[in-house]
Amino acid sequence: MSTPTGAPLPALTNPRAERVRKVAQLSRRVGRERAGRFVAEGPQAVREAIAAHVSSGDVVLDLFATPDAAQRWSTELAAAHAAGLAVVLVADDVLAAMTGTVTPQGLLAVCRLLDRPLDEVLDRALAVPAERTTPLVAVLSHVRDPGNAGTVLRAADAAGAGAVVLTEASVDVHNPKCVRATAGSAFHLPVAQGPALVDVVSALRARGFVVLAADGAGEADLDELQDAAESDEGALLRRPTAWIFGNEAWGLSEEQRGLADAVVRVPLRGGAESLNLAMAATVCLYASSRAGRRLPSTRRESR
Amino acid sequence: MSTPTGAPLPALTNPRAERVRKVAQLSRRVGRERAGRFVAEGPQAVREAIAAHVSSGDVVLDLFATPDAAQRWSTELAAAHAAGLAVVLVADDVLAAMTGTVTPQGLLAVCRLLDRPLDEVLDRALAVPAERTTPLVAVLSHVRDPGNAGTVLRAADAAGAGAVVLTEASVDVHNPKCVRATAGSAFHLPVAQGPALVDVVSALRARGFVVLAADGAGEADLDELQDAAESDEGALLRRPTAWIFGNEAWGLSEEQRGLADAVVRVPLRGGAESLNLAMAATVCLYASSRAGRRLPSTRRESR
Repeated sequence: MSTPTGAPLPALTNPRAERVRKVAQLSRRVGRERAGRFVAEGPQAVREAIAAHVSSGDVVLDLFATPDAAQRWSTELAAAHAAGLAVVLVADDVLAAMTGTVTPQGLLAVCRLLDRPLDEVLDRALAVPAERTTPLVAVLSHVRDPGNAGTVLRAADAAGAGAVVLTEASVDVHNPKCVRATAGSAFHLPVAQGPALVDVVSALRARGFVVLAADGAGEADLDELQDAAESDEGALLRRPTAWIFGNEAWGLSEEQRGLADAVVRVPLRGGAESLNLAMAATVCLYASSRAGRRLPSTRRESR
Repeated sequence: MSTPTGAPLPALTNPRAERVRKVAQLSRRVGRERAGRFVAEGPQAVREAIAAHVSSGDVVLDLFATPDAAQRWSTELAAAHAAGLAVVLVADDVLAAMTGTVTPQGLLAVCRLLDRPLDEVLDRALAVPAERTTPLVAVLSHVRDPGNAGTVLRAADAAGAGAVVLTEASVDVHNPKCVRATAGSAFHLPVAQGPALVDVVSALRARGFVVLAADGAGEADLDELQDAAESDEGALLRRPTAWIFGNEAWGLSEEQRGLADAVVRVPLRGGAESLNLAMAATVCLYASSRAGRRLPSTRRESR
């Protein structure tokens, strides 16, 4: 049987079914932690989830699509099928009940939680491919807005960072808005979450990372660190580096800044009072990855 | 007379008054263009509007505050008063009717439109203070989202750009969401809006600007341009530079890219497919301002 558009009929049509209710519970952190699962929504996130599943397995548990979306994204779903994943066709209002939104984009993957133990994540960050940059880690301390956290994660991925850590009292990386803001990068980078900042800094130091705190009132000027890195191979920015970024409204406390080797400000050359968290993080992470990259002859050609 | 909290009573209490209706009309572009006015809302924007009025005059036309906000922001309003501006106290629901939002932040300034003719704006961008950077301009082509446009304007201000141009079919810089996203920078930078991109590029060329288009598929790598700028005084990035940033969803068309001297991609070192518009613009503008800055001895110490 098929719909008037030629698409097959959905197998799951009751928005009040137990299976639907279980997915809906993943929109809250407590539901995600209890189930050990989260939801990736929309074509971009689902495509990256499938790709991660294909390359390393054990990422996607269930795939749901509306009949229309299944036709539209048939290439992506074929890749999932080849990796042994079955797609359950669902009615539009079932998907809406699963995500709590009126217009979900027709695709949804239930995935295993992505976060890993801190030590494992930092060890993986140290194992940077030789043609990339020196090891780079982004630490989000008490970042509460899921969109901001996701955007910083995307910037860290773009800059070639090897890991992201969200400290205690930060937003959950599996928050649907955060997953969406990462634009797929949540599936690329090792992520740890939950440890106290003091423990993160200890674990970084034990691995030889320089720890830099980004703060508008920092004593060190990012420009001057970049100047030093251009001429001096031993400069701070050319060593394995972890950046700490603070809460979007109040930044880092004096105690938090005190944990870092240096507190660094992004230069403000015009009249702006500040940069927002995501912009400042992007500038800092790109400065590090540029300073830490290998010689041009061995550098990866990126798009 | 005063309220129970000791604040004076509002002078304007009828949300359906003609004066209230006229402010509310400024929430739409056609209303702003007809009146030649726009609204700056909330303490940060109003503070910057007052500061701009104090330094160059003729910016703020009317100031409205709720009694509570007037007490809370008394320093800012005293500066306005010293500059000859009167504050009209309004009831909460009057301010809500003016802004169309449920919880305005208690302060509102009606201002003259900020945009100026293209030639004037570019001439001002050329007159960069010697201790800053070489002239830098950001051009937004068909950028539709007010939050994105405002964030790029803020980044341009932070990087030390001397002007921002929004081409035809871009969002209005006076859109309330855009003004908010600039975090005050709308009042710092000369802004032109409305000209076609081809005319903007002609006007830039006539003034000796190098025109760079930012595009994920660009042939020139930003890293390589930065490498060149480190060793070669005549390198592209050390000359007066205008960056063109395209629409957040579809970027720049082939025709638009063809207008530039070079199409430049921000290197993507990890697995991310792209950066969003504001992040890419921030990286490009900071790369330019860093490459174009003067020698450290004459460089401005920024916060």
